[in-house]
Amino acid sequence: MARSQVVSAASDDPLASWHEGATKRSIVDFVTRVTKAGGPDYVAPAERIATFDNDGTLWAEQPFYFQLAFALDRLKALAPQHPEWHGQETFKSALAGDLPALFARGESALAEIVAATHFGITTDEFEAIVRTWLATARHPKTNRPFTEMVFQPMLELLAYLRTNGFKTFIVSAGGIEFMRTFAETTYSIPPEQVIGSTGKLAFEMRDGTPVLVKLLDIEFVNDSAGKPVAIQKHIGRRPIASFGNSDGDLEMLQWTMAGTGARLAMLIQHTDMTREWAYDRTSPFGRLDQALDEAHAKGWTVVDMKNDWRRVFPFE
Amino acid sequence: MARSQVVSAASDDPLASWHEGATKRSIVDFVTRVTKAGGPDYVAPAERIATFDNDGTLWAEQPFYFQLAFALDRLKALAPQHPEWHGQETFKSALAGDLPALFARGESALAEIVAATHFGITTDEFEAIVRTWLATARHPKTNRPFTEMVFQPMLELLAYLRTNGFKTFIVSAGGIEFMRTFAETTYSIPPEQVIGSTGKLAFEMRDGTPVLVKLLDIEFVNDSAGKPVAIQKHIGRRPIASFGNSDGDLEMLQWTMAGTGARLAMLIQHTDMTREWAYDRTSPFGRLDQALDEAHAKGWTVVDMKNDWRRVFPFE
Repeated sequence: MARSQVVSAASDDPLASWHEGATKRSIVDFVTRVTKAGGPDYVAPAERIATFDNDGTLWAEQPFYFQLAFALDRLKALAPQHPEWHGQETFKSALAGDLPALFARGESALAEIVAATHFGITTDEFEAIVRTWLATARHPKTNRPFTEMVFQPMLELLAYLRTNGFKTFIVSAGGIEFMRTFAETTYSIPPEQVIGSTGKLAFEMRDGTPVLVKLLDIEFVNDSAGKPVAIQKHIGRRPIASFGNSDGDLEMLQWTMAGTGARLAMLIQHTDMTREWAYDRTSPFGRLDQALDEAHAKGWTVVDMKNDWRRVFPFE
Repeated sequence: MARSQVVSAASDDPLASWHEGATKRSIVDFVTRVTKAGGPDYVAPAERIATFDNDGTLWAEQPFYFQLAFALDRLKALAPQHPEWHGQETFKSALAGDLPALFARGESALAEIVAATHFGITTDEFEAIVRTWLATARHPKTNRPFTEMVFQPMLELLAYLRTNGFKTFIVSAGGIEFMRTFAETTYSIPPEQVIGSTGKLAFEMRDGTPVLVKLLDIEFVNDSAGKPVAIQKHIGRRPIASFGNSDGDLEMLQWTMAGTGARLAMLIQHTDMTREWAYDRTSPFGRLDQALDEAHAKGWTVVDMKNDWRRVFPFE
């Protein structure tokens, strides 16, 4: 009887994939404080805004960003219509599958690949293409659909916050329209709560029907100092909790913590080379260096994936 | 007994300020159809997106846009710090209160005034300035606070839609941060559901504290073809109902109506020179010309303010 009660209590834990310890306690303590009516740290539900980075925070980002995998697949599909690509080193490396050569060309080369594969079609067409890709593409290491490469403890955290009256937003450098195709199904985050990098759009009439066409121009890169700017633009309130994993999240966490009242800033450190990946200060994708120093200096919560997470992926 | 039942029924009407007739019926019929579970026009709650213009749709916009009234007041307050303004015709007319001369200089002159009075301060400072202004400024004709110059039937419509599972958004050419200062109190629309024109923002550290500074550059004008673009960017779903009053709302209504399933497009025509104002095809503010033709041609709902609204303002 006592035993079955313990089992039942454990399975009722909304954060069952988090080991007991300081990290889990920092989450539960924060949520308890801000939701305690009449307490000194109480926050009205409308102000309970929580923002999450996506790559490396809600889903994996190795061996390279998943949206880049999409762009590379699409580049191959589009190559026959673009003979000029074969004369350009960036495109040549990408089409040959020579990823080390491509990555050596730096972030701007990757941005070029993404831009070239994301424009000239309508928003409806783009959404259909991404949906088809997500349904068929597989992660190079696990051979799983990319939408299964999400972190079970973070899914629980999202649900736990929402149960406690939080509104959860994605604030990521990923493309806004790319992420929206799966955020609702995968994270229960509706499109209007997904904030990402954007390209320019043009409103056009085609045979009397309005369409929105994706243009080549990058409009906004939602990373680093761009994140607080985008939060202001899209949400118009300062989050009381923010979750990231890389230097690109530092300003979002600073902006969050600079508000008054109870606050939670959390960084996920990828420390698990067996179940996921281990990387931080020197990784080309999701580098965590300056933000880690600031987290330690300011006492922000740092998740040690290996020791804080009982389970990493839902499929384990 | 019968009489008291009639009274009671009337006061229970969520759209009590709308006269019975075709206009009111078009609203109720639409909402009934999209919320009828199992019906042919049923729309899941997550897809029940309704977008509203603000100036001339939710509140009045005569004798000129209220945000311009704010900008003119602020211009006077800032003038001592800007001796150079006295050499510029636009600023000179504005500071002298010569509104006909100012308006004769066209929309770009007004944009110049707005830009000059909205930049160089942090978002927090700007919010505080607008709040103070709204608490003290008065409408030139009615001598009421501007936030009382809202349309009672539209307040009822917003509430009616939300009661029926809709998410209501403002999509207006007004400044996003200007509107957010009053949208939650006045319309029960939270900041994250207010979409407007934006200026560029810069993230800066001041004595170790992050701030967002409003820059002079206009980033996005949320009018005409900009509205569907902003809807895509901020919401990521196509609205099923849209409400406007001027040519600047035409593309938003076209975008809304081009989706599949039940749809509602509504234009408010200002026909009441006694209780409000009467203007349409030639008004410098809120011109309704091309959109009115298209509404008639396509059978969109056109509100005749004089005959469709039992009450215009809450204070009547």
